[in-house]
Amino acid sequence: MAKAKKKDEPVILVTNDDGVTAPGIRNLVEAVKDLGKIVVVAPDKPQSGMGHAITIGQPLRLTPVQYFEGIEAYQCTGTPVDCVKLAVDKVLHRKPDLCISGINHGANHSINVIYSGTMSAAVEAAIESIPSIGFSLLDHSIEANFDAARKYARIIVEQMLKRKADKHTVLNVNFPAVEEKLIKGIRICRQAYAKYEEDFLERKDPNGRKYYWLTGEFVNFDKGKDTDVWALENNYVSVVPVQFDLTNYVLKDKLQKMWKF
Amino acid sequence: MAKAKKKDEPVILVTNDDGVTAPGIRNLVEAVKDLGKIVVVAPDKPQSGMGHAITIGQPLRLTPVQYFEGIEAYQCTGTPVDCVKLAVDKVLHRKPDLCISGINHGANHSINVIYSGTMSAAVEAAIESIPSIGFSLLDHSIEANFDAARKYARIIVEQMLKRKADKHTVLNVNFPAVEEKLIKGIRICRQAYAKYEEDFLERKDPNGRKYYWLTGEFVNFDKGKDTDVWALENNYVSVVPVQFDLTNYVLKDKLQKMWKF
Repeated sequence: MAKAKKKDEPVILVTNDDGVTAPGIRNLVEAVKDLGKIVVVAPDKPQSGMGHAITIGQPLRLTPVQYFEGIEAYQCTGTPVDCVKLAVDKVLHRKPDLCISGINHGANHSINVIYSGTMSAAVEAAIESIPSIGFSLLDHSIEANFDAARKYARIIVEQMLKRKADKHTVLNVNFPAVEEKLIKGIRICRQAYAKYEEDFLERKDPNGRKYYWLTGEFVNFDKGKDTDVWALENNYVSVVPVQFDLTNYVLKDKLQKMWKF
Repeated sequence: MAKAKKKDEPVILVTNDDGVTAPGIRNLVEAVKDLGKIVVVAPDKPQSGMGHAITIGQPLRLTPVQYFEGIEAYQCTGTPVDCVKLAVDKVLHRKPDLCISGINHGANHSINVIYSGTMSAAVEAAIESIPSIGFSLLDHSIEANFDAARKYARIIVEQMLKRKADKHTVLNVNFPAVEEKLIKGIRICRQAYAKYEEDFLERKDPNGRKYYWLTGEFVNFDKGKDTDVWALENNYVSVVPVQFDLTNYVLKDKLQKMWKF
């Protein structure tokens, strides 16, 4: 039976992209469950790399699940962004006070913010005027140790709730995959300029037809010490504030002067 | 038979999110086909609303198609972003001089840039150091009239090729759905702050189980006259330079001062 909301208790929406049964989201719920009224709406299957995809060609299903003791929870057939939209419109019937997404199994620092379903869910919340945080641990393993991540996730959620963040705030938080005692603290960073050097693995099926698996090696071109990649390599928790106004203002001014038609 | 590349001729990669058979991409190819060596790699089915999704859970197929007279073209089973990655790694074996995406059937102004497969393909190209442009027409119809869009798309592509754009340049270009004689010109703009007020249509299947269709009404909160939405409402072609560094630098500085752990 889900807990009733206490007066003045914040409503916290929890989602992710690894699916509702992933250990990461269970750890996130455990980390914050006494900080407000928690409602989980998460994908019913892994949705990693879905970016900001929404489902427009087919309908969505939403089903109550009982994975989290005493917590109202649903699984959704759509993408992480769909989960946020459906949660607000059909589950909560209001905007939650905070949306948290994760804890992702794997890094979402640097350019990963763009491919990540975890971060896109958080960005969607902020577009809808809900302050939000995406959390990721630099360990893909299903057996990853979330102890330190859980502790720091709670600290950051408490900070957000206490400070009454602007409604369009989005934070991209990544945890180094090290023991808690090795973590040096929390750093507010910028997104590193890094990307994947693409390489597709080419194979042939039993009929001799080619197919391709996306692989690719992560390359960091950014030597700055104020980036998320630097912070994580030096055992800090990285926090990058994210925006959804994608206008390149510097280039806008330049083109306004340069381009003649 | 595809045309051989002439010396010094730029290589232009063309993609979209409506699929390789959409009228929009045919019009884009027609608009620019004499400006360089054109290669098309586009999805084999509609991929609208796929945002920056990539395919990591299953392999991709790439098949040559002969939809465009004298133009090398392929359809891909993946997302628009997958198309760009595969094109560079497995078709061109080099970075093209320019990537163009579209012409999308429907608007990609304001917040749509985040959901759009058309624009995500262009952003992916820029991440990979390929200047790029996404084109969209404010008309969803399969029978939309692309005459004016074709003319202006060509003007903008010529400008980009002539000026040797920075390798990370991405432009989000939208065309108003009006006759050519009504178009007042081209405006360099910022992304309007607008979004969808979500509403899901709730239905019941023959077994009495609920399902939801994403709908939602577009609402523009931005009264600025320097936005893409304003330009389009006033019959200008809008051009928004886009960036993929999502760091919110203003908030970063603020949090560095405010947050104490």
